[in-house]
Amino acid sequence: MPEIRQNLVTREWVIIATERAQRPHHFSNPNECKKELPSWEENCPFCPGNEHLTPPEIWRKGSGSEWELRLVPNKYASLDQEGLPYRKINGVKRSINGIGYHEVLIESALHNASIATMKINEIKSLITAYKERFLQISTDDRIELVVIFKNHGERAGTSLEHPHSQIVGLPIMPHQVRSRVEEAMRYYDDTGECVYCRILQDELKDGSRIIVESAHFVSFIPYASLSPFHMWIYPKRHIHCFTQISDDEIEDLAFVLRETLAKLYYGLNDPDYNYVIRSLPRFYKKIYYAHWYLSIVPRITRVAGFELGSGMYINSSLPEESAQFLRDLKI
Amino acid sequence: MPEIRQNLVTREWVIIATERAQRPHHFSNPNECKKELPSWEENCPFCPGNEHLTPPEIWRKGSGSEWELRLVPNKYASLDQEGLPYRKINGVKRSINGIGYHEVLIESALHNASIATMKINEIKSLITAYKERFLQISTDDRIELVVIFKNHGERAGTSLEHPHSQIVGLPIMPHQVRSRVEEAMRYYDDTGECVYCRILQDELKDGSRIIVESAHFVSFIPYASLSPFHMWIYPKRHIHCFTQISDDEIEDLAFVLRETLAKLYYGLNDPDYNYVIRSLPRFYKKIYYAHWYLSIVPRITRVAGFELGSGMYINSSLPEESAQFLRDLKI
Repeated sequence: MPEIRQNLVTREWVIIATERAQRPHHFSNPNECKKELPSWEENCPFCPGNEHLTPPEIWRKGSGSEWELRLVPNKYASLDQEGLPYRKINGVKRSINGIGYHEVLIESALHNASIATMKINEIKSLITAYKERFLQISTDDRIELVVIFKNHGERAGTSLEHPHSQIVGLPIMPHQVRSRVEEAMRYYDDTGECVYCRILQDELKDGSRIIVESAHFVSFIPYASLSPFHMWIYPKRHIHCFTQISDDEIEDLAFVLRETLAKLYYGLNDPDYNYVIRSLPRFYKKIYYAHWYLSIVPRITRVAGFELGSGMYINSSLPEESAQFLRDLKI
Repeated sequence: MPEIRQNLVTREWVIIATERAQRPHHFSNPNECKKELPSWEENCPFCPGNEHLTPPEIWRKGSGSEWELRLVPNKYASLDQEGLPYRKINGVKRSINGIGYHEVLIESALHNASIATMKINEIKSLITAYKERFLQISTDDRIELVVIFKNHGERAGTSLEHPHSQIVGLPIMPHQVRSRVEEAMRYYDDTGECVYCRILQDELKDGSRIIVESAHFVSFIPYASLSPFHMWIYPKRHIHCFTQISDDEIEDLAFVLRETLAKLYYGLNDPDYNYVIRSLPRFYKKIYYAHWYLSIVPRITRVAGFELGSGMYINSSLPEESAQFLRDLKI
């Protein structure tokens, strides 16, 4: 009998196709989809020597051609940094000026770098840069939400191979985020607990969906994982905003992120994936019901008409089996 | 200045990247992605002569090898038709037995048929079959929602070329659908109007986003279209459930659906797409605030980390320009 599981964070249901589930190795990236990349690519706008191909740099770590990280405006920015977020209401047509931030953080000078194989110090610098830029953008009163994400590979929506993340500052709170906040508040009303803290405690006690556990972070496959190898990395400490992360925690997250992505890299032959930092804005002081986390979505299967039409997903893998596969993997 | 537009049906925002928008022809399907298909394929489980390759047939239109439509259970059904929808609640782990319907409607005996080029009578039979099966499944008290959808092409999530639709009966009301109903109720509370009727009236008055208009149906590109050439087909008559469609309206919908898909087929070189019938269940008697419709989503661009992390979309086309392109297209 298939099982329909509810994701308590979103209240969305996922069909876990238990009876026709595929074994974990089935989801491995076919060899023909895996590219061997050079460490430098002549035409890559993110490679050293081509710095003039990006819009003027906002910040860099390192100096001269020896830089380690570069933050630049997105050349094809979907939001304009100048202006005010005026709202227009004309009957059922409602809009707001598209102001905001849309930036690219180049994660390494090496064209073929991958978080799965980077040094801990490099990943620590990357996470610190996320935090610093989140803090800076948060001083802009026009911005309601900062979204930090990464697209790895063509199926994940990027055509640029050179490793990079993106940082977006939005002048509105998206409905999806607001809806999750409301669900978390309701759970807090009903139980006096943060739903994320509750999920984490239950997952640690159960153990069957855990991938990596360290002093401050835990990576695991959610009970109602929406697609094969969909993973969450939760901080153990209850903090609602990513920018509240401490230096110790950054180092620990660098380790857990690398271990988790390395298990994906070696276990499934470097599949395409997205990750996103889900965090409330900086401007709330103390929030009992929300908890930031990082969500990783390998782009192994495709969303079809059923998902579009219902908002539900059909997952053809077993979360417990996938987690065990990654947990047991020696890397 | 880019514009962030709100979809009043979902309350979700879409970034319309006005300044870097691509012209309509840019979204044309590359020739190397378009396959010329034979009318019969030896190994296709949906082609005549291979009827034994599907699970036992539920229904067919026509007789012998001369059938026009076949309804069969999905061989890889994600739900089990037997059983009761028991709920289990174990802390934060909540589930329900995966019972329900998961069926395939084979749309033609021809492997290379396409709604864009079918005869009106054939499409009328197809829509009538949707309606009949929706009505039958609705007599099963375990079912809360019927979802009818079509995946056309690999990017739309199907590996089977032979034209087919799918019909799913769910034992739960998905959160996404419930959330839209709540938004529509709130709009009705605030204005005394059905939000869909309001949108349709405004679109007809404005005209800039209309593609095809007939006696009973209108196809148009939504004001806050989430991706290039995302389209809606609305019935003019306010009915909340698809099964309330009359025979006259079915004939008219067959025409509007074909014209709209033909414009996509000829205008953009047969791109992959999904469509879904968004309808409330049969068991409500009369609902003032909801309105069924058909949504078409060409799979031209990819969803990336930003969309996953915010629920918002970035649309790199202008709805008005895309609609004009399709409207002016002579087919």
